[in-house]
Amino acid sequence: MNTMVFTVRVDATPPVLHDNTADLDRLQQALARSLDDGRPLTIPYPCMTTVARAFRKAGFSGYALVSNLEQGREVVDFFAEKPAVLAAMALDLGTTHLEATLLDLQSGERLAEDNLENSQIAFGADILSRIHHATTERRQQKYPAPDFLDPGLGELQETIVTAVNKLAQMLAAQAGITASDIRALSVSGNTTMAHLFLGLDPYHICREPYIPMFNRAPMIYGSQLQLVINPVAPVWVMPSVGSYFGGDLISGILASGIAQSEKIRMLIDVGTNAEVVIGNSEWLIACAGAAGPALEGGVARMGMRAGPGAIESVAIDPETFAMEYRTIGDGLPKGICGSGLIDLVAALYLTRVIDIRGKFRDPDKEPDPARSAFMKAHLIERNGSRCFAVTTGGDSSGEGDVVLEQTDLNAMIRSKAAMYAILTTLINQVGLEFSELEEISVAGAFGRHIKPRQAITLGMLPDLPLSVYRAIGNSSLRGAEKVLLENSIREECEKIVSSITYLELNVNQEFMIRFSGARFIPHTDPSLFPSVPTFDTT
Amino acid sequence: MNTMVFTVRVDATPPVLHDNTADLDRLQQALARSLDDGRPLTIPYPCMTTVARAFRKAGFSGYALVSNLEQGREVVDFFAEKPAVLAAMALDLGTTHLEATLLDLQSGERLAEDNLENSQIAFGADILSRIHHATTERRQQKYPAPDFLDPGLGELQETIVTAVNKLAQMLAAQAGITASDIRALSVSGNTTMAHLFLGLDPYHICREPYIPMFNRAPMIYGSQLQLVINPVAPVWVMPSVGSYFGGDLISGILASGIAQSEKIRMLIDVGTNAEVVIGNSEWLIACAGAAGPALEGGVARMGMRAGPGAIESVAIDPETFAMEYRTIGDGLPKGICGSGLIDLVAALYLTRVIDIRGKFRDPDKEPDPARSAFMKAHLIERNGSRCFAVTTGGDSSGEGDVVLEQTDLNAMIRSKAAMYAILTTLINQVGLEFSELEEISVAGAFGRHIKPRQAITLGMLPDLPLSVYRAIGNSSLRGAEKVLLENSIREECEKIVSSITYLELNVNQEFMIRFSGARFIPHTDPSLFPSVPTFDTT
Repeated sequence: MNTMVFTVRVDATPPVLHDNTADLDRLQQALARSLDDGRPLTIPYPCMTTVARAFRKAGFSGYALVSNLEQGREVVDFFAEKPAVLAAMALDLGTTHLEATLLDLQSGERLAEDNLENSQIAFGADILSRIHHATTERRQQKYPAPDFLDPGLGELQETIVTAVNKLAQMLAAQAGITASDIRALSVSGNTTMAHLFLGLDPYHICREPYIPMFNRAPMIYGSQLQLVINPVAPVWVMPSVGSYFGGDLISGILASGIAQSEKIRMLIDVGTNAEVVIGNSEWLIACAGAAGPALEGGVARMGMRAGPGAIESVAIDPETFAMEYRTIGDGLPKGICGSGLIDLVAALYLTRVIDIRGKFRDPDKEPDPARSAFMKAHLIERNGSRCFAVTTGGDSSGEGDVVLEQTDLNAMIRSKAAMYAILTTLINQVGLEFSELEEISVAGAFGRHIKPRQAITLGMLPDLPLSVYRAIGNSSLRGAEKVLLENSIREECEKIVSSITYLELNVNQEFMIRFSGARFIPHTDPSLFPSVPTFDTT
Repeated sequence: MNTMVFTVRVDATPPVLHDNTADLDRLQQALARSLDDGRPLTIPYPCMTTVARAFRKAGFSGYALVSNLEQGREVVDFFAEKPAVLAAMALDLGTTHLEATLLDLQSGERLAEDNLENSQIAFGADILSRIHHATTERRQQKYPAPDFLDPGLGELQETIVTAVNKLAQMLAAQAGITASDIRALSVSGNTTMAHLFLGLDPYHICREPYIPMFNRAPMIYGSQLQLVINPVAPVWVMPSVGSYFGGDLISGILASGIAQSEKIRMLIDVGTNAEVVIGNSEWLIACAGAAGPALEGGVARMGMRAGPGAIESVAIDPETFAMEYRTIGDGLPKGICGSGLIDLVAALYLTRVIDIRGKFRDPDKEPDPARSAFMKAHLIERNGSRCFAVTTGGDSSGEGDVVLEQTDLNAMIRSKAAMYAILTTLINQVGLEFSELEEISVAGAFGRHIKPRQAITLGMLPDLPLSVYRAIGNSSLRGAEKVLLENSIREECEKIVSSITYLELNVNQEFMIRFSGARFIPHTDPSLFPSVPTFDTT
């Protein structure tokens, strides 16, 4: 009864001459008795025949399938026997990847999980280029006709719906059910992805003053979106706060538990953007900024998303210069993911292969013979620039190896500087110190594998005891799951959306000053990072 | 705000950087301020683009079009200027005829009215034969599959939807608008017609214990029924009480005002069935029975529905035997409608052309020469039976004339006997006398033209002062109009449906006894009709 859809036992007496209530009225009355909380209960038109026939065939007793909608409940199906599972899909609609789980709402168990590339990438890697594609013809028109659908928008919607359908079918196959057995879908994504998924004009999202068409979507049926899940499955789209603060972050807030916490906590979600929330059960302040690409594997030449073959951790012994790395799946290294990159750059700093500006040092000027030998073994030239070869099995140019270039390093430094600038601007804005935070949840592809120690070394995260940090994985997906499992979470979302204060960093002068200070390892002011060793700048 | 759909003025401020609420959230917030009653307000998915674009084009100020649904309100459109009219259609979905009006919900004015034959007649003249057609294939299956649609049911639904669409277009043309400008539809019909209109299986309606699939339909959008009215126009189907007590009668109760009356009143609605309700604001008891066909022009050979060419009134001077009749439209008589038939039979009784059993008397045995001459002039032989020629311009067999046959008379007597039996059974059941009724509303095609005096003479209606009777016309249509104009009426309908007690006459022994006693003119017990002269039986 507290899940987005649920089954409820119904025992009605069969009709007789002196009790000739209509079939569906009989069902509704029996259900109202079972549920006994006075919430409105309807049987939507497309379900009337199905429900009435199944109710009669079951002898007027069995299990009604009920959807919990905002404004009331809907009876959408009827079973003679309690179904073995009651499947619902939670979906993280990411800009680059879709990640989904299938839950059994009766047991709360996870039946399946899988992911898929967001095939919209074919129309643009990032949000801005997707909006551009979605508004190709629409840009000619100041006020498009009410029924105008930009072909580009249609294309993007069809693409994402096809991908979601594929993912639904993959999950269903894993769980041994059919896609139409999926009885609810909860979707968590950024504001633009939500618009594209619903085929709604994203034109104003990226134009000052950055206005989405909607933040709160109404409940939609699966069939209205041409989804292969059950046609009357409710599709819940996590509400967003603004153009650059999407439902994925509301999910993150849910998953982190900030909004239930008495003490002040912080959530850092690094996806395509870095999004940060600070607060407790009484207040929430959020901001977002471009800090992510280098951390998500989107910038470094050898960067890749965390997946098989990605180097996910690197360690270099500062005494012996012995280097170790581990790839996901333990296979041959094909690239390096965000957490591996942070490990690597932190190790390069601690072993003084790079300086505090993040530049490769000259091995010839290095007095320590062991360090110099290590540097010479790994620093190679490519296109006239110094690079660091993590693996060294390839040819002398590093072809075939996992190689970190200076441009990658520069991007990495910019990203970590942006991240730290965002965090300090925000903490300053609320008049607090980092040390007052009870917990920092780190979410996203970034948060799943990152070691806070290395991130602190780089000056990306504040220098706090490691126990303060908690990795919560794909919080966008976790939030979407929560909504399916607990009905009251939808109200909680509304509460979060309406209580949150959004800090616009793009227009914040202070942010730019802080950003400049953070472009060194760990910082121009090393006293902010007492746990990180500092070295002479040479 | 109290009509089924309404416009409301919205003044929102355009978005700026520090106020970057999404367009639709902005609209919802401004609307919530205007409406100020806390009822849930959503913008349904299919309307989001239209509403958002119109809101932006209008500069974030204008008029929102809002539908008042049971569980909340829906914003379905937006206008820069207040629309000239806000059209809604009320429809009486009769078994033989559709009758509809177009209302302007802003002024309450009637913009247009029209009617059309129910083209389902091609599949069966009465409800039973329609159910038979709608269940041709389905009857093979005890438990049809959830998605099984009987081709016959599909055919009947398509036919009625086509007719409703035609009527909507006729009304729209009269009012100088397009059908898609019709923003709401309220439908009042008997239980079977409601099932056929919605394409819902009527199989059990006519099978003991006579169970409809539904009594209360959910709100349905025009597009879900393939209607040509606005796709998001709410379609409200008047709830019914049971298989033989439909929404048309709930409409009748609304139109008659019984359920608001302190004193006890009665409603008599003669359509294809005779339906009677008695009660006041505290209680309502209803019953229905087959009494109608002869009165609706469905039985008499020359019977026809009230329309151009129908003889609607007949008078015969009991002294001079001068006969007068009037046709609707004052044209040549083509047949006789219910009210004309009642006039005629009452006149034939008062002039002693027929006896108390309703049989034609023998002109040769009539001692009064004037009466005998009149009888000889009008009584003709056809197929060996005596008939009464109302018009006498045709040949000697009455070909081309309007002629009343003995079988017509017999059917008429059965109908009037059934009607009186229904009324007396009901009044007896509630322990009252007819004289205690404050008002008797007479509705239906029958009620529109009938003269209570003549109906009393026949012993069809109780012998009460004529001032007690009130003709309320097509009460099914009037009720449908009320629902459009006043939102609270829907709750009133629910109250009526749940408070009504239904008396099943088909299983009532007492009814059969009363029916036998009523098969004379005016009755076997003439003391029940003191105002009606009695004659020796010869």
